[in-house]
This record gives sequence, structure tokens and C-alpha cells, in this order.
Amino acid sequence: MIQSPRGTRDFLPDEMERRRFYEGILRQTARRYGFREIQTPIFEEAELFIMRSGPNILNELYAFKDKGGRDLALRPEMTAPAIRSFVNNMSNEPRPIKVFYFGQCFRYERPQSGRYREFFQFGAEIIGAATPQTDAEVIAAAIDMIGALDLKDYKVRIGHIGVLRKGLVSAGVPAESMPEILQKLDKKLYEEAWPLMEAAGVERKDAEAVFELAGTVGGEEVLSMISGEESDYLRQILSYLSAMGIDAPEIDLGVVRGLDYYTGMVFEVEAPALGAEKQICGGGSYTLSELFGGDKVFSTGFAIGFDRILLALEKEGASAPLEKPDAYVVAVSNETSLKAFEIVGILRRNGVSADIDLADRKMAKAMKHASSIGSRFAVIVGNEELKTDSVTLRDMTSGEQKVVKIDDLPSEIKDH
Amino acid sequence: MIQSPRGTRDFLPDEMERRRFYEGILRQTARRYGFREIQTPIFEEAELFIMRSGPNILNELYAFKDKGGRDLALRPEMTAPAIRSFVNNMSNEPRPIKVFYFGQCFRYERPQSGRYREFFQFGAEIIGAATPQTDAEVIAAAIDMIGALDLKDYKVRIGHIGVLRKGLVSAGVPAESMPEILQKLDKKLYEEAWPLMEAAGVERKDAEAVFELAGTVGGEEVLSMISGEESDYLRQILSYLSAMGIDAPEIDLGVVRGLDYYTGMVFEVEAPALGAEKQICGGGSYTLSELFGGDKVFSTGFAIGFDRILLALEKEGASAPLEKPDAYVVAVSNETSLKAFEIVGILRRNGVSADIDLADRKMAKAMKHASSIGSRFAVIVGNEELKTDSVTLRDMTSGEQKVVKIDDLPSEIKDH
Repeated sequence: MIQSPRGTRDFLPDEMERRRFYEGILRQTARRYGFREIQTPIFEEAELFIMRSGPNILNELYAFKDKGGRDLALRPEMTAPAIRSFVNNMSNEPRPIKVFYFGQCFRYERPQSGRYREFFQFGAEIIGAATPQTDAEVIAAAIDMIGALDLKDYKVRIGHIGVLRKGLVSAGVPAESMPEILQKLDKKLYEEAWPLMEAAGVERKDAEAVFELAGTVGGEEVLSMISGEESDYLRQILSYLSAMGIDAPEIDLGVVRGLDYYTGMVFEVEAPALGAEKQICGGGSYTLSELFGGDKVFSTGFAIGFDRILLALEKEGASAPLEKPDAYVVAVSNETSLKAFEIVGILRRNGVSADIDLADRKMAKAMKHASSIGSRFAVIVGNEELKTDSVTLRDMTSGEQKVVKIDDLPSEIKDH
Repeated sequence: MIQSPRGTRDFLPDEMERRRFYEGILRQTARRYGFREIQTPIFEEAELFIMRSGPNILNELYAFKDKGGRDLALRPEMTAPAIRSFVNNMSNEPRPIKVFYFGQCFRYERPQSGRYREFFQFGAEIIGAATPQTDAEVIAAAIDMIGALDLKDYKVRIGHIGVLRKGLVSAGVPAESMPEILQKLDKKLYEEAWPLMEAAGVERKDAEAVFELAGTVGGEEVLSMISGEESDYLRQILSYLSAMGIDAPEIDLGVVRGLDYYTGMVFEVEAPALGAEKQICGGGSYTLSELFGGDKVFSTGFAIGFDRILLALEKEGASAPLEKPDAYVVAVSNETSLKAFEIVGILRRNGVSADIDLADRKMAKAMKHASSIGSRFAVIVGNEELKTDSVTLRDMTSGEQKVVKIDDLPSEIKDH
């Protein structure tokens, strides 16, 4: 029996409705912030992702050659495609440009809880503005989206990539060793960072100072421990967030987000209930456009891990409403079968979602089906009632029945 | 400069909103018919599509090996994945099962007008019922969806694959030659069908009779030219369609839909304005589940070519509403900047979609941006008005301005 490929999923109706419900909330919140949706292809030239993340990304990509010999890859994320699309199509538009996107991403890795080979991201970018207001706007949008989903237990941490970079520079780390060390510090893996720093000629006491910086987490008071533009900048972001009514995030000077292209503010949101795979959102300010052949344009954005946030919501017992059909129409005999189809047509034209027996079933079986699909009402079309242009309307929850004129049927169903 | 791969597209905000608008109409109409959404992965085992369409499909597939050596392919259509998912996940559910799906499909072919390498399909299937009612329900759903999009000029043709199959059998065509000949007849390429038929030992006069059958198009009266179960069956479908209030489709005995797995009724919808690529929807009844390791289950379904139908709507001058932001908030000076963010927060919490100046722009530039993003109102936050907890509200269309209390601002904007 053929199965769906490893690490991918089929979403069945109940689950899919739940996903569309939450997707709708994210979309609506993004719109409320003035973001507008774009969509890019499922695959891109592999080079695009190598430019963003370095050649190591190839190990995680679904990469392939098309029949024309082009190196393509299923997208592992959507920031690079969004910025490529900006460079190609939107570079002459008035800035800043606010876009969001939602869709499948692909990563070839061992499937595990909360990690799939086909997964879904919801992301947003403000392209062409480099101000504390921009960063605050992006953080506020991310937090409001998560809040709009009604997730209760999550934690926001913001930092500035300049803090640790400066710390490493003054400890004597050369530029080329920086990315690898930053990645270790980002994960608070100081034991693994130390040999790299030692090899770069850093003294132990300077390394300790950097580790202390990377481990500094707290409220706004933390900012007094660092000086210069980074602390001023983060302070401004906090004041704009506060003005917008957003709860103060934690300051975490160790957040660096592993990727080289970030330029300033970085932030992460985690849902502690998810354990090891607890990060549900990450973002920051960056420049990428110049790598893809455009001018250098500052942007700030974030991506929400849609599958993980749904997992976190599930763990909190959150439930999404399911849309069940309003009515299920059944003919009592072959004689009234055509009339049953006439009635289902009338119901649908009047905005009632209605299903109908397609297999000339006996009444008991048809009622069982109506119940199994969760229909609110059954409409029973019998000869006797048709003489007065009526049908029997059965409330599937209470079991109550009454005779209703066909003309009144749509409103009778919609009003209950 | 890196571009999107050949045959793929970026959808920018205006176009994307238009697409979501029409997608929403299709989804809503499907729900009104009692269909529920499912989603399957972007790629499947390549074998799935070979089983459905034969090995020739490989020439058109984006096929690749994953790092585990598995042969995968980007889906070229979604009926096979839907039925695979049914066999894997839904075979014990009460039948019939009504599902729909929407998403990207991929075909490696020369890009041309209305044909893309990444394209979008909207499809629906009723799984587990083999009755004229089922077929009528599917045809009605397809027609209602196209009608709900408000496409004016389209033509529906229905046929029965049994008619030409029987004709070919009585002309002496053996089973193994059948599919290739049917494909030619489907495209009305009689000149190309003849050599194949001749090679199969068919006499010219019998071939002529088959060609005549394949060319028979008209109203219900056409059914009197054929006898047996096919004509009875189509007649029943027509009566159920008529009961549902659906305009009578054309009968076309030559519709066979190229693929071997169809078992009975077949139908197509075309938009003549599209010229050579005019088919916007196709479907019919079939069995596939037994190929994928399940029991033999009769199904009826269809797929709408979303890109083509949008092209047809565009040619008819149809337009979709664009959702522009309700308000754009501007501080007259740095002093009122935090207050401006407080106000944008209030607006958004009250359901107003609002954007805000992120770059401390001068008033004239900010107004220009408000206008370029199509905002309905500008909210101007100045020191003088703030003394009375007010702001200036400017109607961007009329240019009229008035001073409004901040407390009244959300309702003032929403009521206009």
C-alpha cells in the first residue's frame, strides 16, 4: 500500500478545518497591521538558499536538477524567496513594503515530534525601513498573532546581535571565526564555543566575559549592563512596544539567531510546553537583497512555525470550531428522489450548506449517515408532506421533528 | 539577479488578494455542497502517479530521489493523492466521503499562456458511491462553483466513456489498443486515430461509424441515437441536474478524458475565450483505490484549473475587491511619535486595520505614502489636538479633515 512520503502528512477534514481556522486568524491579524500577502513558488534555484545560509544548507535541502539541468530546491524557508521577489518585482514600490506569506517549506531531516520534512510557516517582512519603530512593529505583529491564536503560555526574548559581536571583537575574534562561535553562543553551548575561541587566540578571562554577556537575561534593567547604540536602540523598541500596549518582552543578550545576515535586533518566541522543540517564532532585522542582485535594503521580519504553534495550542487543550453541514436531505422513497434534489438545490442557493443521500438508502441508514457527518438537521422528503409543499424537518440533536413549508425551509434552518 | 524558476510565478499583493478572493468562493461553494477540505503533501512517491497515468507521465514529472534513495515526484494533479489518502486514512469512514482540495501542482512542460510549470488546482471527489445522483451532484457542484465565480461564458459537455468503448469493441479493437485510440478520439483527431485503428484490424466503414459517434454533440435528443445503459444513465443524470436547477449541459459522446481509469460519466467545462487552452474543468467517475492497495471503490470527481479560470475571468473584465488598510497613522513630530503608536495599537485592538509611519517622515511624504497604499483615512497625531485627547482624521478620498476624540476614533473609522 502506497503511503505518503516519510516526514509528510495528510490532513483530514477535522484537522484541516482546524488548520484553516488558525491560518485565518494569522492572516487577519497580519492584515490588521497593514501587511499584505504574497506567494512565491514551492521551489527556487538552489543557489538562492546557499546564498542565504551557506553551502551547508545543501545537506538539508530537497535539491534536484530539472530536465533542463537547472539546480532547483524545495524552499526550506520563505524569507529568501520573499526578498528575491522584492528585488525582482517590488524594488520600485514606495517603501516600506509590508508583506506576509504562508505555505509549505521542506527540510530533509530526521522526522520527530514537531519536526516534519514538509512543514508550514507563516511569516512577515517589513522591507525598506531601518528604525526602532520598524522593529517594534514587527515584534508587536508577531506577539499579537500568537495572542490572537489564544496561546496562553509563551515567552518572548529580544536581543541585539551587535552586543555579542562587539564582545567577540574586543576579545580578539577575527571576522571569519565569528559565525561559528555565534552559533554556539546562540545555543548557550559555551563548552563548545570555548575551543573555537581559544583557537582564535582568545584568552580565557575574555571568553568568560563573553559567556557572561551571552547568559544575561532579564528586564529592561539588563540594558544598563551594556553601553552604546545597542542599548539605546533596544530601549527605544521597548518604549514603542509599551506604547502599543504590548507586554514587555524579556531582554536576552545571548539571542543571535545562528544566521550571518542579521544586522541588529533579533527575537525569539518559545512555548515552554513543547520541550526541546519549543521555539515557535524567530525573527530580526537583516539585509539580504544585495546578495540576490539588488541594492542593499534593510528589512525586519519573522517566521512562525505553524505546525509547532498548533502543537502548543493542542497541548493547552485549545479547540477550533468545526463547520458541519446545516442539513442532510433524504427522500423517503424513489418517488420523491427528484424532489429531494430540487430541495437541496433550493437550500444551497439560499446559503444553507446541505448534503443529500446519494445512494437511495433506507431511512434508518440515511439518518445514521446524517448523524455521522454531524449534520444539524435532516430534511425528510415524503409523499404525504409534499401534497402541502412541505417536508419534515428533524433536529438531529434533540430528535424533534416538525412539518415545514419548503418555502420556509432555508430560513427555518438558518435561524436555528 | 536570481529570478523565480522558469514556468513559476510570484504573486504580488493585488494579484494574491484576487486569488484568495476567488479561492474563498470555491471553498465556500464546496462547503455548501457538504464537501470538506483535505490536504496532501506537495510530493509523493513517483510510483503513485505512474500507477494512475502510466510510465509516460515520467516525462512530465518533476521527479527526484531523496537522500534516502526514494523516488519522489512533485504532484502533477491531486486525484491520485486524494485517493491514496482515502485508502490510507479514510477507508473505514462512513461513505460516501465528500472531500475537496486546493493547491499547487507541477508539470514539466514548455510554459505558455495559461500553462505553467507550477499551477493551481481546485478539486473535489465523492468517494464510495456509484449512482447517477452522485454524478449529478459532482457536475452540479462544478457548475455552481464556476457560476459562483461569476464567469459568464463557459460550456459544459457530458458524455459516457462506455459509448465509444463499446463502439470500438464492436469495431473489433482489442483492449490493449483502446487507450491510445481513445485519446485521439477525445481530441477529435480522427486522421490520427485511423492508422491506429487500421493497424488493429478495423475496417474503414466501422471506423467511420465510431468517428460519427465521437462527433455527436447536442441536447438530450442525442441520447436516442445510442441505446442501452449509457443512455439511460445519462438521462438520469440530466433529470437530477434539472431538479437541482442546473442548466442542461450539452451531450458530447466524444468526451473520453484521455485516462484509462474512468468508468462511466465524463464531463468537461471550457471557456471559449481562452482559445487553445480553453478547458477549465474536467472530471468523471472512476476507480483508482485498488491500484493503490485498497479495495475497489467507485468515485466521481473533478478538478478546476484555477489559473485558467482566473485568466478567463480576467478576459471578461471581472474584478475582485481589494482590501486596503482603513487608516494610516502619522505623528506630526518626534514628540508625538509614541502617542501615534499608542493610537495604532488602540485601532488594531478595535478591529481597524491600520498602518503607521515607521520612518519619522515629514507630513507631505507620509500623506503620499498613505495614499500610495490606498489607506481610506489618515490619522494625524499633533500636539495641539492631543491636549483634548483628540487627533485629526483625514478622509483620503475627499480630503476632508475633522478633529476626533481618540475614544471615538475606531467607531468613526469603522462606520465610514
